[in-house]
Amino acid sequence: MGKRIAFFGPAGTYTEEAALRYDSGAELQAFPTIAAVGHAVSSGITEEGVVPIENSLEGSVTYTLDLLISQSGLAIWQEIVLPIDHYLMAKPGARTEDVQVIYSHPQALGQCRKFLERCFPQAQQMASLSTVAAVLDMKASAVPAAAIAPRRAAELHGAAIIAQSIQDYPNNVTRFVVLARTDHEPTGRDKTSICFSYDQDAPSLLFRALGEFARMGINLAKVESRPTKEVLGRYIFLIDCEGHRSDPNVAEALAGLQRQVSMLKVLGSYPRWGA
Amino acid sequence: MGKRIAFFGPAGTYTEEAALRYDSGAELQAFPTIAAVGHAVSSGITEEGVVPIENSLEGSVTYTLDLLISQSGLAIWQEIVLPIDHYLMAKPGARTEDVQVIYSHPQALGQCRKFLERCFPQAQQMASLSTVAAVLDMKASAVPAAAIAPRRAAELHGAAIIAQSIQDYPNNVTRFVVLARTDHEPTGRDKTSICFSYDQDAPSLLFRALGEFARMGINLAKVESRPTKEVLGRYIFLIDCEGHRSDPNVAEALAGLQRQVSMLKVLGSYPRWGA
Repeated sequence: MGKRIAFFGPAGTYTEEAALRYDSGAELQAFPTIAAVGHAVSSGITEEGVVPIENSLEGSVTYTLDLLISQSGLAIWQEIVLPIDHYLMAKPGARTEDVQVIYSHPQALGQCRKFLERCFPQAQQMASLSTVAAVLDMKASAVPAAAIAPRRAAELHGAAIIAQSIQDYPNNVTRFVVLARTDHEPTGRDKTSICFSYDQDAPSLLFRALGEFARMGINLAKVESRPTKEVLGRYIFLIDCEGHRSDPNVAEALAGLQRQVSMLKVLGSYPRWGA
Repeated sequence: MGKRIAFFGPAGTYTEEAALRYDSGAELQAFPTIAAVGHAVSSGITEEGVVPIENSLEGSVTYTLDLLISQSGLAIWQEIVLPIDHYLMAKPGARTEDVQVIYSHPQALGQCRKFLERCFPQAQQMASLSTVAAVLDMKASAVPAAAIAPRRAAELHGAAIIAQSIQDYPNNVTRFVVLARTDHEPTGRDKTSICFSYDQDAPSLLFRALGEFARMGINLAKVESRPTKEVLGRYIFLIDCEGHRSDPNVAEALAGLQRQVSMLKVLGSYPRWGA
């Protein structure tokens, strides 16, 4: 029996595809929200959990960032990068020219906006809670409908594919993280994700914070801000840097940063994807 | 006849509320997307346009950032900050205990998650394309339903309010911007929004960029990154700083920045809200 891995479900999502790519022998278990995947891992229901963290078109998945910021007992153990291909699907035998309604998650509808304007200018766009829910909404629709969803959802739910790779931008890639109760041991080709905040208005202090990394010659892969949810204009900063937190230069930068900020949390050190 | 102002509609949204707060004598015109508001302004259909840009819980409205980054002939003319109050509403005469389905935009459902778990643990949550669409979906529902939407949507569509201020966090505030074809003249209490990018991997260069502002003693109100939509890990940075672009210190920082980056765009200088 393989390792138990939670994923942001239901079955048929891109996240399931990422989990299968990461470990095809694992026992996958779907959870309905990103927070539920976090709880499954921190409470020991599963050893690991897979959630999306960033898309090349949409930017960060804020639920995942907020989970990593606020939940204890969770660390990033791995990253997975997966190309995202959107498929248009309908009930078997349906005729393309009859389609009156197109279901998908609002983000997927947005990523296929130009395709829909060009090929289905008259169809009504309807929001679904996920791309997989869109397939079920499409199947339940009384009027001729289609759904935008992953290929795997068509296989699981017996839908017929009408068109493939319908996203407007060719470089649609999503980065997922594997959550576990600890982060990964050093491999020599690692990344470290951290978050930090200040108990005063912060962005001018960010310059000093970045200086700690510059001084130690550490490359940053990402700098981002999230609202604290307390006051508009006060932020939590998230940084991905090269190296493992146990590398001497990273450890020294983190120690310097610790002296400047009111909160510092290492979200995990883990191997770089494809390195 | 007042000034013509486009807003991200339909009527009844928080954006309409912000537009009314900004200029109650204007002739307001609803547009179906944020991009359509931008086109209305840049093409001269309306003098100005109001769109949301940042929420204290959810972070930035990425459609608005992407519009400002990519569309020419648009500048930020003003900012408006509005508290967001979510209301639960149903058909007049409906009984709270009968509610089986709750409609709203996924973001509003997320902002009321704890309220819904506590008060409506059995109700099914359904996605709508906007909070106003949720009121129409609720009214069209065959089973007893409720919707989460702004107070104004209840007034416009004849819904009865069941509960008010149901959001989980008390500090739910949205910042809107008024778009025009030019930005605002200096008032002595201004902000400037810019974006910039590099034609190489960027985040380590951000430290040097922030140095230009630190050197001139300019406070930053915000630092943020957006994907370029070309390569995962390459970003466009957005900075809000204090001062007007025509102030000597801001002008010098921008000139210094111009020498470092491959693209720099001033999105506008405008008066600080409440200053």
